[in-house]
Amino acid sequence: MITGKNYVGNNLSAKGSKTYKTFNPKLNLENQHVFVEASEDEIDGAVALAQKAFETYRNVPGPKKAAFIRAIADNILDLGDDLIETYCFETGLPKGRAEGERGRTIFQLRSFADLVEGGSWVEAAIDTALPSRTPVPKPDLRKMNIPIGPIVVFGASNFPLAFSTAGGDTASALAAGCPVVVKSHPMHAGTGELVASAIVKAVEETGMPNGVFSNLNSSGIEVGKRLVQHTGVKGVGFTGSTRGGRALYDLAAKREEPIPVFAEMGSINPVVVLPDAMRKKADRWAEAYAGAITLGSGQFCTNPGLLLGIKGDALANFIKQLGNAIVKMEPSCMLHPNIVEAYESGKSQAMAQPESTLVVDYDGEAGANHARQAIITVEGKAFLENPTLHHEVFGPFSMVVQCNDASQMEGILSKLEGQLVGTVIAEGGEAKNYHGVVEALKNRVGRLVFNGVPTGVEVCPSMTHGGPYPASTDSRFTAVGIDAIKRWVRPVSYQDWPDELLPVELQNENPLGIHRLINGEWSIIKI
Amino acid sequence: MITGKNYVGNNLSAKGSKTYKTFNPKLNLENQHVFVEASEDEIDGAVALAQKAFETYRNVPGPKKAAFIRAIADNILDLGDDLIETYCFETGLPKGRAEGERGRTIFQLRSFADLVEGGSWVEAAIDTALPSRTPVPKPDLRKMNIPIGPIVVFGASNFPLAFSTAGGDTASALAAGCPVVVKSHPMHAGTGELVASAIVKAVEETGMPNGVFSNLNSSGIEVGKRLVQHTGVKGVGFTGSTRGGRALYDLAAKREEPIPVFAEMGSINPVVVLPDAMRKKADRWAEAYAGAITLGSGQFCTNPGLLLGIKGDALANFIKQLGNAIVKMEPSCMLHPNIVEAYESGKSQAMAQPESTLVVDYDGEAGANHARQAIITVEGKAFLENPTLHHEVFGPFSMVVQCNDASQMEGILSKLEGQLVGTVIAEGGEAKNYHGVVEALKNRVGRLVFNGVPTGVEVCPSMTHGGPYPASTDSRFTAVGIDAIKRWVRPVSYQDWPDELLPVELQNENPLGIHRLINGEWSIIKI
Repeated sequence: MITGKNYVGNNLSAKGSKTYKTFNPKLNLENQHVFVEASEDEIDGAVALAQKAFETYRNVPGPKKAAFIRAIADNILDLGDDLIETYCFETGLPKGRAEGERGRTIFQLRSFADLVEGGSWVEAAIDTALPSRTPVPKPDLRKMNIPIGPIVVFGASNFPLAFSTAGGDTASALAAGCPVVVKSHPMHAGTGELVASAIVKAVEETGMPNGVFSNLNSSGIEVGKRLVQHTGVKGVGFTGSTRGGRALYDLAAKREEPIPVFAEMGSINPVVVLPDAMRKKADRWAEAYAGAITLGSGQFCTNPGLLLGIKGDALANFIKQLGNAIVKMEPSCMLHPNIVEAYESGKSQAMAQPESTLVVDYDGEAGANHARQAIITVEGKAFLENPTLHHEVFGPFSMVVQCNDASQMEGILSKLEGQLVGTVIAEGGEAKNYHGVVEALKNRVGRLVFNGVPTGVEVCPSMTHGGPYPASTDSRFTAVGIDAIKRWVRPVSYQDWPDELLPVELQNENPLGIHRLINGEWSIIKI
Repeated sequence: MITGKNYVGNNLSAKGSKTYKTFNPKLNLENQHVFVEASEDEIDGAVALAQKAFETYRNVPGPKKAAFIRAIADNILDLGDDLIETYCFETGLPKGRAEGERGRTIFQLRSFADLVEGGSWVEAAIDTALPSRTPVPKPDLRKMNIPIGPIVVFGASNFPLAFSTAGGDTASALAAGCPVVVKSHPMHAGTGELVASAIVKAVEETGMPNGVFSNLNSSGIEVGKRLVQHTGVKGVGFTGSTRGGRALYDLAAKREEPIPVFAEMGSINPVVVLPDAMRKKADRWAEAYAGAITLGSGQFCTNPGLLLGIKGDALANFIKQLGNAIVKMEPSCMLHPNIVEAYESGKSQAMAQPESTLVVDYDGEAGANHARQAIITVEGKAFLENPTLHHEVFGPFSMVVQCNDASQMEGILSKLEGQLVGTVIAEGGEAKNYHGVVEALKNRVGRLVFNGVPTGVEVCPSMTHGGPYPASTDSRFTAVGIDAIKRWVRPVSYQDWPDELLPVELQNENPLGIHRLINGEWSIIKI
């Protein structure tokens, strides 16, 4: 049941005076529930509870954390159709997408539960003593990862489940041993509250400390700002716009004690389409990319907003086919009227650039808040010279850059801002002839896709979802996959510590049977 | 031979007009060589060369990087007595210390050479495809670490070899595949130039690209500032004061593209002396700590500046013995008159606090620029209430805090700024009765020492040299030990990439025989 209140720890609370509603873009009207924005007292209360909870939660053994996180997954599933319906009402996205995203969220939670139950994620390293070493004896040193403290997670507009209340940031922080305070996204506050209720239920069922999770409503920037500046907060997770992420980064960097902000932000995800692929499989790739560009109304952070080819008949044909394929797609509803408005404005700005040539701009029927997909094309030189053309247009829009040759393509790629994903479309062995192009692309992205589309982000250990700035604020970490836990931990070393006082992960007997680096060799046996 | 010039890549250059000399604190007079500060052109030239060098150096295979780094170590040894003599002339430190630090520097370089020759440091992870998975096939994903780009390293005043020109920051960045521009420390510019000449010789001998290393002279803040703000620079390593490190952090955070700054800064390294240890081994620990506090004139970042005990006869006796032991130590020369001056001023400020009681302030003979060691003591309540007492006094000074009980001790520890090291001195099984104290200490430090002194920093995989702010700007990374390489890399994932186009670390055959996480299991075999 949606109450419109905040969860300050396990308690529902609504002391604030500012209220708001969510919006159903498909019906083009407000949803019924009234949400009460968190007051300053409630914000401070949530952080104080998180700090207190951290004192015990940081030492909760892996299997108990795993049970807690699995209970969250189970309780989210138990929300059943209520959750799916609320999700659809608050996003305009179809039921299949809601169910798919719920599945992804559950899978992420269970992956992190497995990870912390296993225990090897602490990256234990042990160097045993050499008491007879000269000139000085070598001490015994043992290292492992420990959690850094309370984390603030900002829900993302475009993934109300997988990148929000119980999404990857929350799951990875809880797995690490860090309490989480969620700044709920105002566009899906109801979905957020339902998921929060599932987490709070899990907290109570599995005996976790009150305050290990809070969910705070917010319709403006004040709640987030106060949270990021709070001395009790030790890290921030965010998925959203470059402007929003950078503002949080700046706030955190200005603190007396700066804290890390992991913001996954804008990206236009360049796609290099090589000549043979265009000549031989223009149809196939035009079809695939028409689908990728319009997937979820183009509201994926991995949406391909930039395609690069080498000028000529094959590229001209590909552009034509891409235009034909995309114009056949049904327009779909975007998340919110504000997002449609921003999309139309960004699209118009790109089209208004004197160097741009329109390929296609859907002009058929479209429902309220539906996005009209479009493709434009520009010359390589124009793209290089006009930075406005580099801006992300969030929605079903893409630009084809016609390069003079491979060298110009390499030059363009090497000057691009940082990106989440770069893709190479090739046929036969042609990719090996474009080493410079691929190298330039690699240096600007977090993930390289070959003969595919960038939109899907697999949840697995070898995924990197992040990239050089502004794709993310810290390219050294991924937001998706189990390595996302590394954002919320720091190493601590024990020197000459008595075995019985060490954490179990570092004891000689290795009671958990975890993978450890012992005197430079990996091992799961005891010392 | 010392020329006083900069190395802009492999070329000696002195276009600037600002000059300076180093100082021999023992003889209390200037050294002879004249150093020419790098001009803006030389700074920009060094970064441009580094950017160009990165294009090839980032793909140099591990064994070749290892040969380069080993040649640096060999060439530093080949500098022989010239280096040792210059080091002593520029620091006032004794020959034995110079040789010991050179040994540490060589060991660090060779450790990183071994690491990159082995190849497993790239943390390869592979998840193979599941083409028949429903509803969508699972792609093949493979991840490894790649270097981030040119790095600026700031030499540290207190370790002219091990934390400067070819110290841990430079060694780890070069090992990662990142070119390095060193901002030489003005107090040991001659030592820096000699080491730089050894590196440049290694660049030429092993055929590394020109620009993979530069060494820029600097006597003020301008050179460092320009380097940190340069768009071609992608990361910064620094060891020094909190004020200096924070200034660099702030500059880097304000850039259009923020870059990581790994600053290892101030620390007072609290030591908890438990009652039984004080009752039974006051002599032994007073002796050991008199040595640790005065080691290298107290100019170690791990110097124990704060000792905490529980009030009573045993603590009073320990304080007396510590005073007696430290007053017997010979005063020693500090690095520079400015450092002696800052020490005496910091010491006086601490002593002038109304709550402080003097235990001992050495008043015997002392040579020019020698530090007079001192111990003061304060009550727990006074320490809690007066933040001036928390300031680091860089030099042979320590403060004993007399706590009312374990609970007050825990309260003090939990409110301390972040620290590099925390130590517990205990006897028999008493440590297990102070769980809250140890937990509070653990939460504020990067390394916990049991029954020892914090000063030594072992170079090994399980070392953490870093800690919560302001011990370092990023507690998630260590500045000492092979994991220091992680500061200069980011993961990149390859999706469905053809085997023959993958880096060798990710190819099916595993030609390097490295340790990889394959479908969730560690393995060194092929797929």
